[in-house]
Amino acid sequence: MKIETKIEHFNEPLYLESGRIFSSFKLAYETYGELNADKSNAVVVCHALTGSHHAAGRYDGDTKAGWWDSLIGDGKAVDTTKYFVICVNIISSPFGSTCPLDIDESRGKEYRMRFPVVVISDVVNAQRRLFERLGIKKAHAIIGGSLGGMQALCFAIEHSDFCDRVIALATTYATQAWAIAFNKIAIEGILNDPNFDNGNYDKEAIKENGLTGMAIGRMAGHISFLSPHSTKSKFDRKYVDTDGLYELKGRFEVDRYMEYNGYNFSKRFDPLCYLYIAKMMNVFDCTRHYDSLKDALAPIKAKLTLISFSGDMLFMPREMREIYDSLVDMGRKNMVEYIDISSDYGHDAFLVEVEKFDFYIKRALEWKK
Amino acid sequence: MKIETKIEHFNEPLYLESGRIFSSFKLAYETYGELNADKSNAVVVCHALTGSHHAAGRYDGDTKAGWWDSLIGDGKAVDTTKYFVICVNIISSPFGSTCPLDIDESRGKEYRMRFPVVVISDVVNAQRRLFERLGIKKAHAIIGGSLGGMQALCFAIEHSDFCDRVIALATTYATQAWAIAFNKIAIEGILNDPNFDNGNYDKEAIKENGLTGMAIGRMAGHISFLSPHSTKSKFDRKYVDTDGLYELKGRFEVDRYMEYNGYNFSKRFDPLCYLYIAKMMNVFDCTRHYDSLKDALAPIKAKLTLISFSGDMLFMPREMREIYDSLVDMGRKNMVEYIDISSDYGHDAFLVEVEKFDFYIKRALEWKK
Repeated sequence: MKIETKIEHFNEPLYLESGRIFSSFKLAYETYGELNADKSNAVVVCHALTGSHHAAGRYDGDTKAGWWDSLIGDGKAVDTTKYFVICVNIISSPFGSTCPLDIDESRGKEYRMRFPVVVISDVVNAQRRLFERLGIKKAHAIIGGSLGGMQALCFAIEHSDFCDRVIALATTYATQAWAIAFNKIAIEGILNDPNFDNGNYDKEAIKENGLTGMAIGRMAGHISFLSPHSTKSKFDRKYVDTDGLYELKGRFEVDRYMEYNGYNFSKRFDPLCYLYIAKMMNVFDCTRHYDSLKDALAPIKAKLTLISFSGDMLFMPREMREIYDSLVDMGRKNMVEYIDISSDYGHDAFLVEVEKFDFYIKRALEWKK
Repeated sequence: MKIETKIEHFNEPLYLESGRIFSSFKLAYETYGELNADKSNAVVVCHALTGSHHAAGRYDGDTKAGWWDSLIGDGKAVDTTKYFVICVNIISSPFGSTCPLDIDESRGKEYRMRFPVVVISDVVNAQRRLFERLGIKKAHAIIGGSLGGMQALCFAIEHSDFCDRVIALATTYATQAWAIAFNKIAIEGILNDPNFDNGNYDKEAIKENGLTGMAIGRMAGHISFLSPHSTKSKFDRKYVDTDGLYELKGRFEVDRYMEYNGYNFSKRFDPLCYLYIAKMMNVFDCTRHYDSLKDALAPIKAKLTLISFSGDMLFMPREMREIYDSLVDMGRKNMVEYIDISSDYGHDAFLVEVEKFDFYIKRALEWKK
């Protein structure tokens, strides 16, 4: 299938939870498969913090496929011969949707640090506008992991009539202090890097050289995506061949992995966008407008599938389990399934161990209403 | 008791594992209690990465006691009416023992980045020199947590005739990739801070202003000292009262905690010393000169007590358990005890939950040879 990014412009206001307003906005997205005649086969895929709408397939001439390509495609668990899959770049992300680097039309200048804080509910509201425009009144399913799982849960709660099935992986009902602490390293690293210049950095220079503060922050992120077990099996105590054990700057292989990933990341992801999306993750709490988790879950009408990973150090399995237990307590056992996948890959498992859970996704997509 | 730091100078070479040599060195230390006539009641306490030889008691006019004051003192588990307790500042640490800020006599200038990498074995060898000078031929016991636990294990293995009892808490036999990854954040933060100036920073300016890169690295350290459970019970999702939820720079309480501790720490601890001690921790592997963990443990003659903490995210309980299992396999069940303390405090538990394990320390000190 030919893969291409589409951009949809909305010349209409988007009211944000913060009280601020986008007078217009745009969304980048991709689709895979065909929308059927009654527009009932849409599967919405939601991406994570640094992901994009490029969830599957390859662009012309590209060797690397979309981030969930092993899950989505013809004959795969999310079968594009049956489903019309759509993935929308979240607002605040640098891959085509409205973001801090866009022109704030009221000022004729880039938003930069004047960009409003956008929350998961806002991101999901914006996606609904796109689906309306495409004539999709109801999704067959919503699927997402990590920050994408937050979007999926938000769809289930705040757009209950839109969702028949919701599948949330490696996520939580409210970002916990432990995850907020990990994000702090990146936030503090970015804000304090002199080259960040309070958001007025030269974009091209960052693409060329990266931003050290963000690279270091991202290294902390990588710790949270891994696990004690996965770091041991991947790196153990292997030392970089060319480095001296008794040299102060000598490195273990795990050090080199972090450097490589941290510095590369800082060249390919915009630091302001990172700040805004980390904030979005931190602020996420689906219980905020409710008295309790149970109150928050009460509006859900979708069949809900929750998948956690045993070694996830960012969003612990018990956080997903709490959602399940609450729904069972509420007498909704028939509408929720919870699966804890045994994995040594930590949080990354939802991206790298698709073969361990794609069966559950397939089954969840076939769950009879 | 009157507490004071003593400094002992050694005008004799100390040969380091790296092949480098200190032609002279000094050690800062404190003692509590009285050495008995046959010098058989010495209990050596080993401190952690950012700790010091000030393990117990209060200096004149000081309100804050030493870091293990709840464990050490008259009538406490490490009873100074019975034992002569001695705690030595490790070489590389900024609190009085030879460190990178001292004058390298061969050059007449401060060592700075020319300081040699010092490993746990070196630190322990230096301590032995002091004990010899004090006439202590054998210690009643060695106790240490975290980096101090590494010293304790090193004493047990490499100075087996010196040790009757060794008690190691919240530590490991070899620093694992997960812990090395956490240290990487601090190392990278320090090395890349422009004010670090490749080790040529102005010491007084750092004391005054701190070093942002080290502060951020220390924040990552704080994550590893805590646990998902302790951050939740301590901070939950509480937001700083005066900050706006929808402001980009608005903070959760856990953010404020990390800022407070990170920035304060960076004013009170020298960044070069931090680099060298983090390296020391990373390099620690008591199996390095042996074929296996069992081989490494074979020389131990002391009664060994291993205490881990269930929520420790830096050195996992299973790392201590491996030592125990190896010794049991080797038919040494009668000389080792392993206790896993249930704790929500993570790695910090060895400092903050003394009441949960002081009984075991007391018992270990009374373990008949």
